[in-house]
Amino acid sequence: MQIISGSNSIEFSKELSKKMNWELSIPNYKIFNDGESYLRLSKPPTEEIIIIQSLYYPQDTHLMQLYNLISTAKRLGSKNITVYTPYFSYARSDKEILQYEAISARTVLHILEMLGVNHLITLDIHNPQIFKFAKTMKITNIYPIKSVSNYFKTHLSNLKNILIVSPDQGAIQRAEMLANEMGLKFTSLEKTRHPITGNVQVTTKHTKVSSETVIIVDDIISTGTSLAQASSLLRIMGVSTIHYFITHFLSSEALDALKEISDGIIISTHSVPGIVNQISTIDDLCEVLSR
Amino acid sequence: MQIISGSNSIEFSKELSKKMNWELSIPNYKIFNDGESYLRLSKPPTEEIIIIQSLYYPQDTHLMQLYNLISTAKRLGSKNITVYTPYFSYARSDKEILQYEAISARTVLHILEMLGVNHLITLDIHNPQIFKFAKTMKITNIYPIKSVSNYFKTHLSNLKNILIVSPDQGAIQRAEMLANEMGLKFTSLEKTRHPITGNVQVTTKHTKVSSETVIIVDDIISTGTSLAQASSLLRIMGVSTIHYFITHFLSSEALDALKEISDGIIISTHSVPGIVNQISTIDDLCEVLSR
Repeated sequence: MQIISGSNSIEFSKELSKKMNWELSIPNYKIFNDGESYLRLSKPPTEEIIIIQSLYYPQDTHLMQLYNLISTAKRLGSKNITVYTPYFSYARSDKEILQYEAISARTVLHILEMLGVNHLITLDIHNPQIFKFAKTMKITNIYPIKSVSNYFKTHLSNLKNILIVSPDQGAIQRAEMLANEMGLKFTSLEKTRHPITGNVQVTTKHTKVSSETVIIVDDIISTGTSLAQASSLLRIMGVSTIHYFITHFLSSEALDALKEISDGIIISTHSVPGIVNQISTIDDLCEVLSR
Repeated sequence: MQIISGSNSIEFSKELSKKMNWELSIPNYKIFNDGESYLRLSKPPTEEIIIIQSLYYPQDTHLMQLYNLISTAKRLGSKNITVYTPYFSYARSDKEILQYEAISARTVLHILEMLGVNHLITLDIHNPQIFKFAKTMKITNIYPIKSVSNYFKTHLSNLKNILIVSPDQGAIQRAEMLANEMGLKFTSLEKTRHPITGNVQVTTKHTKVSSETVIIVDDIISTGTSLAQASSLLRIMGVSTIHYFITHFLSSEALDALKEISDGIIISTHSVPGIVNQISTIDDLCEVLSR
């Protein structure tokens, strides 16, 4: 197996190479004056490869690089291509809400499949339902439950009576998985979107949340508005400490929003570069690759 | 036939709709806070459609929009899809110069073909050899010879003794086509690239260029350095007036470089928005579409 590192995943690829003792190929990347991406593989690709590329902003450039990596490796003889996208852009464009809308996640999955990807590995994708758009490509979605659980077990002095909270009902499985792994209870708040203004409101059917400490888990945070709202609601219900695990942490604006509400622990994965404590997904990835 | 306008080709699409009396669909485009593109068709696509999208900077975003337009139209029932890309990005990445390089033009052509494009129309592509990468898709490359010829005939008072010049030998066919259409003579300079520094030098085997007025024709200008060099050489050979037709005019920096050398006419097509006089390719496109 050879690892081909995307332009933005070099450190992670080195880590994986060391851990699995697999050959590492770091292509030469540059951007021309006119904005076009150039890349050149550092060595001939082997038959079996794994390409690692996170698709955060500028996502269209990172996508183009990924398409070029796959296409080039395929042309030069690779037969079995695995792709790991720690951040999968366009994941939230997963269905037609208004008629005739583009379903961008479908477009990206189609292109990856048609270029010849055999196995796509994603990390805590917004909506696993989108995988139905792929016809032949195998897809595995990692939820980094062990890494997150270990982090909290190491960094929190008293785990007893902590409640795991999902900020909406749709994503309650994330809370459930982590709660089971950590031996804790879980619940969810309710998020409703105003049909006309589009504003989000967070409420709860539970009259009280009994814990003084909670861990909110969510997949993506961009501005932080709805998670700040969820946190305020928990405060009103008597919660004194709020910790956060957000898989994909998109902006420093969001960090400011959370820090205003709580001085708890805030962690994310390495899927998007940032200033939040980041946990590696390498153990979770290796588990998938060793199956 | 229905015309679906790319985000950057709305005026041209309106012009085409009027001229051909075809239905026009202008999708709703926006860019989300995180940089992702959104689009929604304005009406159901018909069985037969033409999508128009120029692929200049930010080319990866314009490519993603194009992929989404094709994919959405196909999903909603379009069966015969023509795409016109006045500017085709990555056209210069047309072969491996160093081993293991990505051939980006090949990647883009593959994706368009696999998404279901039946007919791709390009405008004065850098190297038509790249079309061999498409297996089933029909491809037509427009050279806007009539529009350019008409422009010069209208704007130059004395056409006699004008020489058409290609700045390198590889592209001499462009000069030949225009010369034939205008009833003029043509020649080419020679461009050599230093194997180590990569610097471009323009020379000529001809001891003299007999005309006092020339028209330089080229496909792309980015910084303007090599065309300025070609122009200086012609000056030394006694040319007093230099006009330019450059199909794809990428930067204002290039305009400055040319204006320093000559006060002749400078024209381009509408393929990239800019400050140079632009001629429309609508007649050339309609001719292809009417075949």
